[in-house]
Amino acid sequence: MTSPEDQPDRPGTFITFEGIDGSGKSTQTRLLAEHLESLGHEVILTREPGGSVGAEEIRSLVLEGDPDRWSAETELLLFTAARRDHLERTIYPALDAGKVVICDRFADSTRMYQGLSRGDLREKVDKLHRLMIGTEPDLTILIDMDPAVGLARAKGRQTAEERFEDFGQELQFKMRHGFLDLAQQFKDRFRLIDGNRSVDDVAGDIRLAVTDYLA
Amino acid sequence: MTSPEDQPDRPGTFITFEGIDGSGKSTQTRLLAEHLESLGHEVILTREPGGSVGAEEIRSLVLEGDPDRWSAETELLLFTAARRDHLERTIYPALDAGKVVICDRFADSTRMYQGLSRGDLREKVDKLHRLMIGTEPDLTILIDMDPAVGLARAKGRQTAEERFEDFGQELQFKMRHGFLDLAQQFKDRFRLIDGNRSVDDVAGDIRLAVTDYLA
Ligand SMILES: Nc1ncnc2c1ncn2[C@@H]1O[C@H](COP(=O)(O)OP(=O)(O)O)[C@@H](O)[C@H]1O
Ligand SMILES: Nc1ncnc2c1ncn2[C@@H]1O[C@H](COP(=O)(O)OP(=O)(O)O)[C@@H](O)[C@H]1O
Ligand SMILES: [Mg+2]
Ligand SMILES: [Mg+2]
Repeated sequence: MTSPEDQPDRPGTFITFEGIDGSGKSTQTRLLAEHLESLGHEVILTREPGGSVGAEEIRSLVLEGDPDRWSAETELLLFTAARRDHLERTIYPALDAGKVVICDRFADSTRMYQGLSRGDLREKVDKLHRLMIGTEPDLTILIDMDPAVGLARAKGRQTAEERFEDFGQELQFKMRHGFLDLAQQFKDRFRLIDGNRSVDDVAGDIRLAVTDYLA
Repeated sequence: MTSPEDQPDRPGTFITFEGIDGSGKSTQTRLLAEHLESLGHEVILTREPGGSVGAEEIRSLVLEGDPDRWSAETELLLFTAARRDHLERTIYPALDAGKVVICDRFADSTRMYQGLSRGDLREKVDKLHRLMIGTEPDLTILIDMDPAVGLARAKGRQTAEERFEDFGQELQFKMRHGFLDLAQQFKDRFRLIDGNRSVDDVAGDIRLAVTDYLA
C-alpha cells in the first residue's frame, strides 16, 4: 500500500471536475472521456463519493437515512475513508497503468461541502487530507456558473440521495465563491471554465484545457 | 456538537478496559457495572468498535467479509468515524448526565491494533486521534496477562467477526508489551491489573482501583 508521504510519481493523469450542483460536471466528464478515448487514451471515468466497491458502500451508509444521522465530523471521516479506498482500489492502479482518470468531484468538494457548509471544519478538512490522503489531482476543471441556472437545471433530476445538493440558492452562492477561492489557492492545477453556455461550447473549452495539459 | 478542542469538563466518569484478547475485559466490565450499580451509580456499559447505532453499522461494514477488504488506513478512518459517533451519541450524553461510562476497548486498542499490528501506522493513529477525537478516558483498566492463557480462553468463544483477535500468539505477545508501554506513556489514567488469576480476584482488584478513583 502507498502512504501519502511516499507517493510515487505515477505515469497516468488525474483530472477532477468540480463546481456547484447542476453546473454540468456529470455531462462534461462523460463527453471528455469519449473525446479522450477517440484520441486513443485509455480512460477511467469515476466519481465521488464512491468509485470503488467499498467506497460505494460507505457512500450508501452516509447518504441514506436521516440527514442528521451523522455529525459533520463523522461524515468527514466516512468520506475520507471512502476516498482512501477509491484511491487505492480504482485511481492509483489506473494511474500506475498510465491511464487518464476523470473523477466527478474529489477532495475540493469535501473542502467545500464538509469544510464550509456543514459546521466550520475547513481547517480540519485540510489537516485530515494531508494526514490520510495527500494526493492532489494533476488538473482540476472548475465549471463556474450562476447558481440560479444550476439550481434550475438540477431540479430536473432530483434523487433520494441528493440531499447534499439540495441546500438552496444561498448555499449554492457560498459554494460558488468558495470554489473560486480554491481556484486561486491552487492556481497551478485549476482551470476555470464558464459553464453558462451550451453543452458544446463548454465541452470545447474543456477539451482545449485538457489537451493543452496533456501535450 | 462538541469538537475535541473545546471539550467541556463533563460531570460523569469515563472508564475504559484494555488488554489482549481473552484477558477478561468483557467478563470484568460486566462485573464492575453490576458492582457500581449496587453502590447507587448510574452506569452505561458499552463497547468498541460499536456502541451507538451508527458505530455498530460501521463496525459491521469493517468486520464483515474478506479480511483484506479494507487497507489499514481505510480501516483506521472507519474506526475513527465509528468512535466519533459513539462519543457523540452514547458517551458524551451519559457523561453529561453524570453517569459512569464503562467501555470495553477504546482508543488504546486502535493504538495497538491499527497502529502496531496492521501496517506501521502508530504516528498516524496518534495524529488522527488528536485531530478528530481528542477525548481520553479518566481511568483505563489494563488487564495484563500471559498471552498463552488468553489465547486458550479465547478459543472457547470464537465468532465469525473475530478475525481481529485471531492473530496468533506472536502478535498477542507484541500486543501485551505494546499495552504495557502505553500504560507507561499514560501513567496517570492507567491502572495495571494482574489478569492471571480467578475472576473474583481480578474483579476485587478492579473494584478497589475504581472506587479509589471515584472517592
Ligand atoms: N451547458 C448546459 N446547458 C443546459 N443544460 C445543461 C448544460 N450542462 C448540463 N445541463 C443539464 O443540466 C442538468 C445538470 O447537469 P449535470 O451534468 O448533471 O450537472 P452536475 O453533475 O454538475 O450536477 C442536467 O439535466 C444536464 O442535462
Ligand atoms: N480470570 C479468569 N479465569 C479464567 N477464565 C476467565 C477469566 N476471565 C475470563 N475468563 C474466560 O475467558 C474467556 C475470555 O474472557 P473475556 O471476558 O471474553 O475476555 P476478553 O473480552 O478480554 O476477550 C471467557 O470464556 C471467560 O469466561
Ligand atoms: Mg453530477
Ligand atoms: Mg471481549
